[in-house]
Amino acid sequence: LPPLDGYKCLNTGILERLNAGEIVIGDGGFVLALEKRGYVKAGPWTPEATVTHPEAVRQLHREFLRAGANVMQAFTFYASDDKLENRGQALKITGAQINEAACDLAREVAKEGDALVAGGVAQTPSYLSCKSETEVKAIFKKQLDVFVKKNVDFLIAEYFEHVEEAGWAVQVLKTSGKPVAASLCIGPEGDMHGVSPAECAIRLVKAGAQIVGVNCHFDPLTCVKAVKMMKEGVEKAGLKAHYMVQPLAYHTPDCNCQGFIDLPEFPFALEPRILTRWDMHQYAREAYNAGIHYIGGCCGYEPYHIRAVSEELAPERGFLPAASEKHGLWGAGLEMHTKPWVRARSRREYWENIRPASGRPKCPSLSTPESWGVTKGHSDLLQHKEATSTQEMKHVLEKQKKVKTSA
Amino acid sequence: LPPLDGYKCLNTGILERLNAGEIVIGDGGFVLALEKRGYVKAGPWTPEATVTHPEAVRQLHREFLRAGANVMQAFTFYASDDKLENRGQALKITGAQINEAACDLAREVAKEGDALVAGGVAQTPSYLSCKSETEVKAIFKKQLDVFVKKNVDFLIAEYFEHVEEAGWAVQVLKTSGKPVAASLCIGPEGDMHGVSPAECAIRLVKAGAQIVGVNCHFDPLTCVKAVKMMKEGVEKAGLKAHYMVQPLAYHTPDCNCQGFIDLPEFPFALEPRILTRWDMHQYAREAYNAGIHYIGGCCGYEPYHIRAVSEELAPERGFLPAASEKHGLWGAGLEMHTKPWVRARSRREYWENIRPASGRPKCPSLSTPESWGVTKGHSDLLQHKEATSTQEMKHVLEKQKKVKTSA
Amino acid sequence: LPPLDGYKCLNTGILERLNAGEIVIGDGGFVLALEKRGYVKAGPWTPEATVTHPEAVRQLHREFLRAGANVMQAFTFYASDDKLENRGQALKITGAQINEAACDLAREVAKEGDALVAGGVAQTPSYLSCKSETEVKAIFKKQLDVFVKKNVDFLIAEYFEHVEEAGWAVQVLKTSGKPVAASLCIGPEGDMHGVSPAECAIRLVKAGAQIVGVNCHFDPLTCVKAVKMMKEGVEKAGLKAHYMVQPLAYHTPDCNCQGFIDLPEFPFALEPRILTRWDMHQYAREAYNAGIHYIGGCCGYEPYHIRAVSEELAPERGFLPAASEKHGLWGAGLEMHTKPWVRARSRREYWENIRPASGRPKCPSLSTPESWGVTKGHSDLLQHKEATSTQEMKHVLEKQKKVKTSA
Amino acid sequence: LPPLDGYKCLNTGILERLNAGEIVIGDGGFVLALEKRGYVKAGPWTPEATVTHPEAVRQLHREFLRAGANVMQAFTFYASDDKLENRGQALKITGAQINEAACDLAREVAKEGDALVAGGVAQTPSYLSCKSETEVKAIFKKQLDVFVKKNVDFLIAEYFEHVEEAGWAVQVLKTSGKPVAASLCIGPEGDMHGVSPAECAIRLVKAGAQIVGVNCHFDPLTCVKAVKMMKEGVEKAGLKAHYMVQPLAYHTPDCNCQGFIDLPEFPFALEPRILTRWDMHQYAREAYNAGIHYIGGCCGYEPYHIRAVSEELAPERGFLPAASEKHGLWGAGLEMHTKPWVRARSRREYWENIRPASGRPKCPSLSTPESWGVTKGHSDLLQHKEATSTQEMKHVLEKQKKVKTSA
Repeated sequence: LPPLDGYKCLNTGILERLNAGEIVIGDGGFVLALEKRGYVKAGPWTPEATVTHPEAVRQLHREFLRAGANVMQAFTFYASDDKLENRGQALKITGAQINEAACDLAREVAKEGDALVAGGVAQTPSYLSCKSETEVKAIFKKQLDVFVKKNVDFLIAEYFEHVEEAGWAVQVLKTSGKPVAASLCIGPEGDMHGVSPAECAIRLVKAGAQIVGVNCHFDPLTCVKAVKMMKEGVEKAGLKAHYMVQPLAYHTPDCNCQGFIDLPEFPFALEPRILTRWDMHQYAREAYNAGIHYIGGCCGYEPYHIRAVSEELAPERGFLPAASEKHGLWGAGLEMHTKPWVRARSRREYWENIRPASGRPKCPSLSTPESWGVTKGHSDLLQHKEATSTQEMKHVLEKQKKVKTSA
Repeated sequence: LPPLDGYKCLNTGILERLNAGEIVIGDGGFVLALEKRGYVKAGPWTPEATVTHPEAVRQLHREFLRAGANVMQAFTFYASDDKLENRGQALKITGAQINEAACDLAREVAKEGDALVAGGVAQTPSYLSCKSETEVKAIFKKQLDVFVKKNVDFLIAEYFEHVEEAGWAVQVLKTSGKPVAASLCIGPEGDMHGVSPAECAIRLVKAGAQIVGVNCHFDPLTCVKAVKMMKEGVEKAGLKAHYMVQPLAYHTPDCNCQGFIDLPEFPFALEPRILTRWDMHQYAREAYNAGIHYIGGCCGYEPYHIRAVSEELAPERGFLPAASEKHGLWGAGLEMHTKPWVRARSRREYWENIRPASGRPKCPSLSTPESWGVTKGHSDLLQHKEATSTQEMKHVLEKQKKVKTSA
Repeated sequence: LPPLDGYKCLNTGILERLNAGEIVIGDGGFVLALEKRGYVKAGPWTPEATVTHPEAVRQLHREFLRAGANVMQAFTFYASDDKLENRGQALKITGAQINEAACDLAREVAKEGDALVAGGVAQTPSYLSCKSETEVKAIFKKQLDVFVKKNVDFLIAEYFEHVEEAGWAVQVLKTSGKPVAASLCIGPEGDMHGVSPAECAIRLVKAGAQIVGVNCHFDPLTCVKAVKMMKEGVEKAGLKAHYMVQPLAYHTPDCNCQGFIDLPEFPFALEPRILTRWDMHQYAREAYNAGIHYIGGCCGYEPYHIRAVSEELAPERGFLPAASEKHGLWGAGLEMHTKPWVRARSRREYWENIRPASGRPKCPSLSTPESWGVTKGHSDLLQHKEATSTQEMKHVLEKQKKVKTSA
Repeated sequence: LPPLDGYKCLNTGILERLNAGEIVIGDGGFVLALEKRGYVKAGPWTPEATVTHPEAVRQLHREFLRAGANVMQAFTFYASDDKLENRGQALKITGAQINEAACDLAREVAKEGDALVAGGVAQTPSYLSCKSETEVKAIFKKQLDVFVKKNVDFLIAEYFEHVEEAGWAVQVLKTSGKPVAASLCIGPEGDMHGVSPAECAIRLVKAGAQIVGVNCHFDPLTCVKAVKMMKEGVEKAGLKAHYMVQPLAYHTPDCNCQGFIDLPEFPFALEPRILTRWDMHQYAREAYNAGIHYIGGCCGYEPYHIRAVSEELAPERGFLPAASEKHGLWGAGLEMHTKPWVRARSRREYWENIRPASGRPKCPSLSTPESWGVTKGHSDLLQHKEATSTQEMKHVLEKQKKVKTSA
């Protein structure tokens, strides 16, 4: 096994690393992790904690760094001006302040290792409420201005349900001259307009993204499957790209195309779905075998999940992450447990084959996703967009009620 | 609903608070929380992070404080000299250093609110390997010396499987003149010698503990049940005490008397058993109704679990914890979610009745605890003690093998 | 293994057999088996099929005989006059006709082997509606008259929830001079008035029953547990008896004291709870080891369940049942299966350890028994109640309340 | 609701009925039903009971007739000479005797209503061991001779895993001039050579089958899906046919292409997968809506399952089956239950929405089908064929062992 040395000195950009065949390990999702720690509010999901509680954000960055992450993604999720509008006013903090603080925190911790800093944009309420391409692009441009000012190492357009909007984001980010990654929150069924993963990836590469992939919304193996479809599509089209995947750390075998948002357990009863570290070993191996070299996590990921990814890929990377000083591979640390029968669990075979019980005898194993029950088409797509006016909202809720009643 | 003001100025000791009928909210378990963050090693489970990574320990204290905890328990679990012996030498850190740093960190954060600092001792390898009362007490005394030097507010003897050893600990701690709480890691079946919860509590009160209860090893409702049995016993005996409970945040309906240690999922596949915040509401209410006023958590507790306890008891306490600024009561924050059908989940009835799916269709709901399969008696008790010599260890493992084969 | 010879010639009565230490195997429940075959109506559950479709009743007797049953219980369940009153009039069939036909069918098939014929009485609506002891006993007497006329070999008072009524039944049946067995449909919590199994058994033995036990309402291991409690009670009281057990063939770990009737799945969705033949091996062995020698089945039992009981106890009985000509022990018949990987299942270890999946990923493993929700209010109670008479209703509710309070 | 009259006088052939748009209800599978009653041996699965225990076969026919079946399928499954060879010699019964007795029993009961009698052939060991088309056809011809002699009303080639062999069977059966139905035991993935359901159906129709469909191996909704694919294929090809479906009464969401045979629970631990009568309502409705008019059952079906199919389609058929005299629609019979809270279950909404618990907390909801772990291809297909020689057998078993060890 490789020596434990923590931070290998790379000193090179994201594309150089990927071009050289290196594995780049991403971090985990900040939104849900910080919600559990008390710094993000479920519902708005905005990252004002970068300003109000920098110590909490900094600490989470550090934990992912220790776990082996090569990328410190600035905590700018949903920090676009249109999204923050109401929240921001209440908080007396501007979007720019949040984004700048996020970049500073990421850079501060990145320097403690040799990680890269990424700035990210995500889908906007403006697109969902049918604003024009110009208007939506202006939103992205405002966040980009901060990223350029703070000189992040590369850019990510992530968590897009519609490839059209993601394409616009890529076009804006490309103007900076920095490397651009594009990641959709879709599964094998494609985006919300029904565009297949393959076609989505082709469009994003053509728009200028050097790295494409998916994040959030589905469990690791489902996301790997979707990225494989992207890769096949890109290669068939005679194009070139690198691939990334940053899935949920939740089991979602029962999701529909909207992913875990539609599960009745979202977001406050997902606990029994949380993946173990051993699930992460399988995920990391399958992602790597599929030719995906940027491998990270999204919602549900805790530092120990990323550490497990790093440990699985230690033979390829040539080193273990710093946090492995506190983790015996495949449970080896249990050799030091007080009780002998727990010591007997300190072996790979044991943990690789465990089928963990839920301890919840009155709960099922799968859920029925909540659905609008409306056949696909224009009206359906409108429904999925955010209802900005009260009237629109009422209309949508009534429709939903009817569907439920008749079901 | 009560106004959100975070830290109510109490400025009074633990007994004054409990005597005044106040609710004291404990923090959560540090060992498993910091293992997931990369700072504690499963197996040895020792707290050297207080010295090596104080920022991580400090941050976790802060999160529990924000969540409403009134007690900052210094992270001294398994920091007795006999336990640390091998580990500590390797780390070039002494037990005293770890314990002192732990007290400093707890006090630093406690001052940010108005929390109390507690110093704790736990069961020792010395007792399990049949060392004398004098020797075991000397171990406790060494930790106590640090607590006295650092002037903690009160003391806790916790995580004892044998009431005899807990009694010795109480006797030692009492010499300091500080208030003493005693908490066993037992369930309704009693301690490892079969002493009932009622009898255990009586002995601890007689030994001088002003607060008695249980922590770890079992899920909240099971722990509440055990403490109720303690309370009944103490009252029947004409004695007086306050009561505390700090359970697991895992479902354990399938445990035997040893608790979650014996579950095949311990400690690396417990995820599907993690309690939701809504389970915490039920727990807090039942504990309070049972007359238990010191209510906290142990292994598996994350800050949001403690926040849920605080929120449930906000009407009684008169205020919400600081972290509730990032949490709508009963999911109210979802009213601001982008998707309308998620907004529909922003109500108490929804979350109170949810039966969360595991997303794991090939896993059972209950496990079979691993067992020694040896009938109770002297030889059995010896077995449960730590096997210090290789010979002893071999003997025990062989016995275990035989049991498994014949089963 | 013992030779297959089917019907061992015993030619002796039930008590002679039990006194000689022989195992007596009972048959399975007719009511649910014939409901699935189309001859009994769920709800009334009455046995008019003995008159209207004798071929169906005869065939089921034969199948249990082939499966190894030593007792053909005449299909007279709920065939008391008070129960049949409304139904019988509609059908233009009297209770006497039904009971006589039942005896004839049982005798006809019993002669095909060397089985005994038993006549049975069960709890009456008269008792539940507070009729006098005299009135209730008159009901039993009417059925007994038929049994005496048809000269059955012995009598069973079974499916009683109240030991008081069962005692009355025993007293009536004793007047015939025939051996009397008494079986309650209770679990370890005792009868509906809270009388313990031990006390119930003592009362029944004192009333004259030579065989006591339980049937229906709970799964096999729960029933065995209840009968063990009976046996301990009887022996402690210095009395003597034989013991019988005829449980459900359904898993009922989630039942309250009323048994499977209260499960939301009763009676039309119990399928996933059905026991396998391998569960029967365990049951038969545990019952026998507990000193219970009259071992049969009740609701849910199909002939193959009784065959499994017979096969498990073949070493003790010295022979296999006739139906074993169509069954390889422990799956041995699979050696002749077409597919090789199914052949690999033809061994005891495989079937003894199987944890069968339900194939129902959206269903839980346990249910919550339905409750009266008595606190809800008067109008609510009316909804749940029988539309017959208000007085009857009140009586039932009060009785239930008492039960709940005492539970 | 339609009047209960039992047997509507049709007096017309299968094709006339289907051409007239009538629904034809099939019976259930005899093999597993009679195994549970003690008359068929699991493993060989042969129908010698038609000769040795005609009363048991007759009774099962009657129960299906009462349940609404329009077809009495002679119990000739696996009664081909090559299959019976070893078994038959041991039993001193010839294949012709078994087949003749089966036809007589089916006709005898069919006359009690107005059901049709069908004679059936199934896949042969001869085909699986690579015998020639001529040899295989000779096997079918021998069974056909009996069916012609006994003048059955129509013929069914069923339970074929390979469309090639099914096509041969159809060609043989067509020589009789009687209507021919062809049913494969495949799912949506197609036959064992990977021929799609659509292509299979086209070939069978071209071979002369007037009715095509699937039976056995998968649960009802999976089978309906496969038949829909058949129908679409046939219609796209400009051909015409009637459609039939006779699925399992077991849930099989976890099956691979081989169906329930590969499940570890087959055949002795399938109990928790058994469908309820309410699942049958859904099945019957979906099958009918899909344009499938010959709707029956296969393994796992008990008479009450077929009755539920008949009850669901009573509005379309205009009458209820005879056995409905013992069954209130949607649980209406429970109105007469003794316990009031059970009475509250006598409504459609209750049963339609029930999610039945398994009562098995240590069992998973899904299984992993056992697999050969060999990639598809010629050698794979050979493997699936019956290993007739000892050498072949050994080879296959060793391969299996290796797969298991390496897995």
